[in-house]
Amino acid sequence: MSYFKEKYRSVRNQSLHLCAPLEKEDMVVQPMVDVSPPKWHLGHTTWFFEKMILEEHFKGYQVFHPEYNYVFNSYYESIGKRVLRTDRGNLTRPTTEEVYKYRAYVDEQMAHFLDTMTEVSSKVSELLELGLQHEQQHQELLVYDIKYILGNNPLFPAYTRKEIVPSIGSRALKFLPMSEANYKIGHQQEGFCFDNELGVHQVYLHDFEIGDRLITNGEYLEFMEAGGYQNFKYWYMEAWAWVEENKETAPMHWHQIDGEWYQYTFFGLQKLNPHEPVTHVSQYEAAAYAQWRGMRLATEFEWEAACHRYEPSIHQKANFIEDASLSTQTAEQDHFQFYGDTWEWTNSAYLPYPYFKTETGAVGEYNGKFMINQMVLRGGSFATARDHIRSSYRNFFHPHLKWHFTGIRLARYV
Amino acid sequence: MSYFKEKYRSVRNQSLHLCAPLEKEDMVVQPMVDVSPPKWHLGHTTWFFEKMILEEHFKGYQVFHPEYNYVFNSYYESIGKRVLRTDRGNLTRPTTEEVYKYRAYVDEQMAHFLDTMTEVSSKVSELLELGLQHEQQHQELLVYDIKYILGNNPLFPAYTRKEIVPSIGSRALKFLPMSEANYKIGHQQEGFCFDNELGVHQVYLHDFEIGDRLITNGEYLEFMEAGGYQNFKYWYMEAWAWVEENKETAPMHWHQIDGEWYQYTFFGLQKLNPHEPVTHVSQYEAAAYAQWRGMRLATEFEWEAACHRYEPSIHQKANFIEDASLSTQTAEQDHFQFYGDTWEWTNSAYLPYPYFKTETGAVGEYNGKFMINQMVLRGGSFATARDHIRSSYRNFFHPHLKWHFTGIRLARYV
Amino acid sequence: MSYFKEKYRSVRNQSLHLCAPLEKEDMVVQPMVDVSPPKWHLGHTTWFFEKMILEEHFKGYQVFHPEYNYVFNSYYESIGKRVLRTDRGNLTRPTTEEVYKYRAYVDEQMAHFLDTMTEVSSKVSELLELGLQHEQQHQELLVYDIKYILGNNPLFPAYTRKEIVPSIGSRALKFLPMSEANYKIGHQQEGFCFDNELGVHQVYLHDFEIGDRLITNGEYLEFMEAGGYQNFKYWYMEAWAWVEENKETAPMHWHQIDGEWYQYTFFGLQKLNPHEPVTHVSQYEAAAYAQWRGMRLATEFEWEAACHRYEPSIHQKANFIEDASLSTQTAEQDHFQFYGDTWEWTNSAYLPYPYFKTETGAVGEYNGKFMINQMVLRGGSFATARDHIRSSYRNFFHPHLKWHFTGIRLARYV
Amino acid sequence: MSYFKEKYRSVRNQSLHLCAPLEKEDMVVQPMVDVSPPKWHLGHTTWFFEKMILEEHFKGYQVFHPEYNYVFNSYYESIGKRVLRTDRGNLTRPTTEEVYKYRAYVDEQMAHFLDTMTEVSSKVSELLELGLQHEQQHQELLVYDIKYILGNNPLFPAYTRKEIVPSIGSRALKFLPMSEANYKIGHQQEGFCFDNELGVHQVYLHDFEIGDRLITNGEYLEFMEAGGYQNFKYWYMEAWAWVEENKETAPMHWHQIDGEWYQYTFFGLQKLNPHEPVTHVSQYEAAAYAQWRGMRLATEFEWEAACHRYEPSIHQKANFIEDASLSTQTAEQDHFQFYGDTWEWTNSAYLPYPYFKTETGAVGEYNGKFMINQMVLRGGSFATARDHIRSSYRNFFHPHLKWHFTGIRLARYV
Repeated sequence: MSYFKEKYRSVRNQSLHLCAPLEKEDMVVQPMVDVSPPKWHLGHTTWFFEKMILEEHFKGYQVFHPEYNYVFNSYYESIGKRVLRTDRGNLTRPTTEEVYKYRAYVDEQMAHFLDTMTEVSSKVSELLELGLQHEQQHQELLVYDIKYILGNNPLFPAYTRKEIVPSIGSRALKFLPMSEANYKIGHQQEGFCFDNELGVHQVYLHDFEIGDRLITNGEYLEFMEAGGYQNFKYWYMEAWAWVEENKETAPMHWHQIDGEWYQYTFFGLQKLNPHEPVTHVSQYEAAAYAQWRGMRLATEFEWEAACHRYEPSIHQKANFIEDASLSTQTAEQDHFQFYGDTWEWTNSAYLPYPYFKTETGAVGEYNGKFMINQMVLRGGSFATARDHIRSSYRNFFHPHLKWHFTGIRLARYV
Repeated sequence: MSYFKEKYRSVRNQSLHLCAPLEKEDMVVQPMVDVSPPKWHLGHTTWFFEKMILEEHFKGYQVFHPEYNYVFNSYYESIGKRVLRTDRGNLTRPTTEEVYKYRAYVDEQMAHFLDTMTEVSSKVSELLELGLQHEQQHQELLVYDIKYILGNNPLFPAYTRKEIVPSIGSRALKFLPMSEANYKIGHQQEGFCFDNELGVHQVYLHDFEIGDRLITNGEYLEFMEAGGYQNFKYWYMEAWAWVEENKETAPMHWHQIDGEWYQYTFFGLQKLNPHEPVTHVSQYEAAAYAQWRGMRLATEFEWEAACHRYEPSIHQKANFIEDASLSTQTAEQDHFQFYGDTWEWTNSAYLPYPYFKTETGAVGEYNGKFMINQMVLRGGSFATARDHIRSSYRNFFHPHLKWHFTGIRLARYV
Repeated sequence: MSYFKEKYRSVRNQSLHLCAPLEKEDMVVQPMVDVSPPKWHLGHTTWFFEKMILEEHFKGYQVFHPEYNYVFNSYYESIGKRVLRTDRGNLTRPTTEEVYKYRAYVDEQMAHFLDTMTEVSSKVSELLELGLQHEQQHQELLVYDIKYILGNNPLFPAYTRKEIVPSIGSRALKFLPMSEANYKIGHQQEGFCFDNELGVHQVYLHDFEIGDRLITNGEYLEFMEAGGYQNFKYWYMEAWAWVEENKETAPMHWHQIDGEWYQYTFFGLQKLNPHEPVTHVSQYEAAAYAQWRGMRLATEFEWEAACHRYEPSIHQKANFIEDASLSTQTAEQDHFQFYGDTWEWTNSAYLPYPYFKTETGAVGEYNGKFMINQMVLRGGSFATARDHIRSSYRNFFHPHLKWHFTGIRLARYV
Repeated sequence: MSYFKEKYRSVRNQSLHLCAPLEKEDMVVQPMVDVSPPKWHLGHTTWFFEKMILEEHFKGYQVFHPEYNYVFNSYYESIGKRVLRTDRGNLTRPTTEEVYKYRAYVDEQMAHFLDTMTEVSSKVSELLELGLQHEQQHQELLVYDIKYILGNNPLFPAYTRKEIVPSIGSRALKFLPMSEANYKIGHQQEGFCFDNELGVHQVYLHDFEIGDRLITNGEYLEFMEAGGYQNFKYWYMEAWAWVEENKETAPMHWHQIDGEWYQYTFFGLQKLNPHEPVTHVSQYEAAAYAQWRGMRLATEFEWEAACHRYEPSIHQKANFIEDASLSTQTAEQDHFQFYGDTWEWTNSAYLPYPYFKTETGAVGEYNGKFMINQMVLRGGSFATARDHIRSSYRNFFHPHLKWHFTGIRLARYV
């Protein structure tokens, strides 16, 4: 019980902590469809606890506001009773202040609820765990979205003021060998995992090699300077259409000013650091980069097998949200970066594992319904919580997206 | 000089007064393309004084912020130096607080500027007048936009709490006769007018009659109940396409709940008052209503001639922003409603008057460049300032729009 | 009766004559929404006689094919019984051969019908006249559409082989004076006119001058070379958006090849003749050109009054479809070009005249429902039939369109 | 050599044979973006031989027409020298007649070329084989496209008149067991294959069962009648959005008339045969159907392994284009339908096999650049040539498409 009380408190606080540097104006907007307003994240994660736990399992619970179910439900399948032409980014009410009150109310009720229970049923404890994992996922989205909101403002406001640690240079890229065999894939440890990691199964892998670190800004810049964005042969056909339609020429948040490359960071506009891992690339760009190098991206199975072999537990220097670096960090000598820094695009489509079962009820909508047209990413980013990531964790996005902290690791057959 | 000092103070204060009931969250958003965020209106009207007067005519003036010209210029013809995928409704910075500081700074500088001048040049006095008229126009847009922002929120928040005056019933519609003749059209009085009112000229009008009041909600409801939105024959072909594409069935802000009609007002959701003038109709709907009645909308020339004849000066009971009614009002016995309440759609396209000349410089972009594909409205609304409206005033919008305070007056040949 | 028999035969033959040079493949396609497939024009004009006359007034008439009403009705308000995702340009059946059979059948039935009547009722004779005028209108559209279909093919096929008459040069542009007065506008002659010309009424015009000929390719090229398409100040705001979105740089069918300007004509790709009237310009371009010259377009009332004064009857050298020139022609010394050559964009919106009445029934859908957001053109083009045009004839199109034979005549106040 | 001469002749003739029943009008149009005009297919497949073989390898070869490279190249990466707003479905020229002449010319030249060679180089023989395989692929597309063109015409014209074989009923669905093991996947036989089938590799499969026949119209209708298209829980999130946006309610070419279901077939509109395999379903629909049955689609690896086990060589009753049935056929007792009838949607994304290498040059654009966001189909359809299909053949389409001959086979874990 005290595990949940403590975790509940710390996870819920972290959401507030992430929003603390924002102005109220920053809390409202949705500058592109994939971004949600920060106050919506705060409300939606709260609604999850209210709807899934308090309404169902806490006798006599009074809903905070009758309309909030409509406002903070992310699933849209319930039909609203009035037709209003609006969307998340136009909902100025409830205000941030009111959302904070909503959070305080639900947190207080959750505290009562946990206090009154001598023992948590397995159903409730599963929902609790899921609610907290869900909030951690939204915290990561919150970091992406904040960067997008601020980084697309012509004033380039800093999110936080911080001393930038000078870069110490990057080491030469080497490759780690892996031998052909059947490997076990899927969640095999104790502890929480999402349903999409279940179904431990074997996958046969042929001999391959995988890069021992992430690709850097400097290495990516070489691709750009070699005309990578001008030559269709490195790109999938629809990736090339995307390049042309959107006039893509660089990772997101990169700006060329007077011939020099800058990057919008959480500390404002900064000169590009060539030694840091490149981030904000789409799967299209990651694949095109690999193609240009005559290599490829790993499959998610290769990634997982290699991670088990070469970084069986998370390295102490891995760069997560707790480290508050708020940026990718220069690779060290003794560290393969499988975890943290950037999510690594794989060349695996997001598909069900053998024996995958959709759960019944609303929780069943969690993962299965996204298993089409998306690509898998692995390993977490600097915006991920250290206790949220696992070797079996499967993140997934459409391949053209790049507002999140994505990166590139190369692979090749031998 | 003191005329300008006083008017400057009162007009500028009115903008702040209108925003006072809003939350900061309401200040940011742009829920449809025609709406601007309230804080953008506050900044843009301020920028007008800074750019057109202080920068040009106040020696030694220091610009408040180098990027604000980019942010608050509404004309878009200057090319920004960086390509950012953003628009007004996603610009969380400058914050409302910063915009207020910007206003205070410019107001202070304007005060200095006006103090230091013994005499205002005619160029400066024209720009001052234009800047204040411009701000009054934006105040009216502000009222439209606030209503749209709040009225499209599922919580239907009230803008202000107020006692609603009970309706006293509407009188029978009669028609006012007008005789065929050449009439003088255009600005013929003293005082300010926009360039689009200039070019006093004659227009020959044939005999006609014009309604002696605006059409009411109750009368419009009859059209709806007679199947007006289901019968293509009342509509222009492209109006009918608009009805079908947008599933139009009623004026904007009307909601049918359990079989009864409600209207979102500045006081929240209210039962529809059948005696008030109908508002929030597009020109398409106004024309279809007239067609259903076997009549038509007046031309802007007919309207102006009839207004000169029947309401030569603004009626004391006319309903303007100063009255703070914030809604259309029941017609009284002795009053033709040419002014105030709602803008009246005419069947005139917005075209130049004879001798119309585009002014040189940025001011020349004010009116002429909109003279295509828009329709003229006349007479002001309850959101117009009493000293801002004239019989020759030409407002104009695309015929499908209806988020502003529009209304219907019938006309017919005899 | 014999008037109608003769006219019916000649008008109907002209449609076939115009399609004779085409391949069957040319008869089917619809390369942009405003174009209709040639075989659709042939079917639709035939359907008009079948639906409006034979079905209603010829006892015992057997419909040619039960589905043709659905296929060839242009009004769309009748709802088809099956939902099929298709449109005119994808309907390969009925084939051209079948449409020719349909025409032959209806023509034969019409001949019987006219033979059996000793006297035509006024209702039938009105419909006959309307049907023939309607077919003449579609013949003109057919010419526009054929040019669009062939001119957008990379092989630039010629429609006909013809000796191009060498240009003889253009004379200096002069202006014709007109005095202020009330002028009578609308159809005042004997003979057929459309409902939109009815309602003879007075319009007061102030002193003005109007160009004595159309603007030439050479004059328009000066505007292009002076940067007309690069300077927003000549354009309406939405015209400028149109220029930028469509990357407009020249009239339609102009191609710059190795630094030289060519024009796709009905005889294939030809070097631009600077002395011919410019055509294929939108109203936006016509207005921008006038603005650049410091002048303006005439209103439709000014045009009609000036035409009455300076070209009271159609000039014998006016260039119409009967002349088969299939292109604009160099202006002669003694001829003002009010008629033929190109339709002249005016600066008048297409609005109802005083006393305009929509007719009842399907014929009532003919004109009134288009009276919004379109601009009036006057005078006919080289694709118009000489007996189809009048001084009161009002053509109308959206201002951004330019696949038809449009042109520019300047006007100015004095 | 004679192998190629004979195969060249027969494959090339088959394209003409397929187009023989069409009208010229049918040859031109492109009623949706995925469809190509039949005459374009005829030209494009010809261009392939001209461009890849004759221009490169036949000394002195004269290109048939200098513009045809621009018109018939499907790859679009070469930039046309003039910007013309057109696309395949608007290109009326070259006409069908001209395309036939182009084919005759190239065929004659190919005959000369093959005659003059005593021995074909391996490069040429590879290109020859590829060109013929390519044409067979386009023949299949041609059949899809013809059905779409005719089936979306309100006249529902028949492609051919034929006796429809009465249905003999379908047998109960059973499941074929497969045991867990490493299976060999990829092209392991002699003879031609595409590059995407290369890279024979092992895949570990867990125990599963696979349906012993395709799902029928009758079985699919049960899903529809059980509200399958109204319940979001059977659908991927983006599949559900697709259902709602397109108002999907049935397979393509199904029409409900007076309460009864009809299907547009190559013989015209026919009453739905419940015993035939369902076709014209998207992967979304196939997956939703499986979900509703509590099962799933097989992966492409499962399909290939099961096919090797249960239908190691193509069954003599398998239904291919040579059988000219032009529709799906009732399953027989002794036959698993792995081949022919309909392509079977799998739940595998189209991704490279281990060791996949993109070939250099234009041929390298053949397959690799499509390996994103598409799903694999297996087994061929009634429109496939019997000598064109293999157990390792990988077809691929976006999951929302259904104008081709797709079908459903269920799978499940045990």
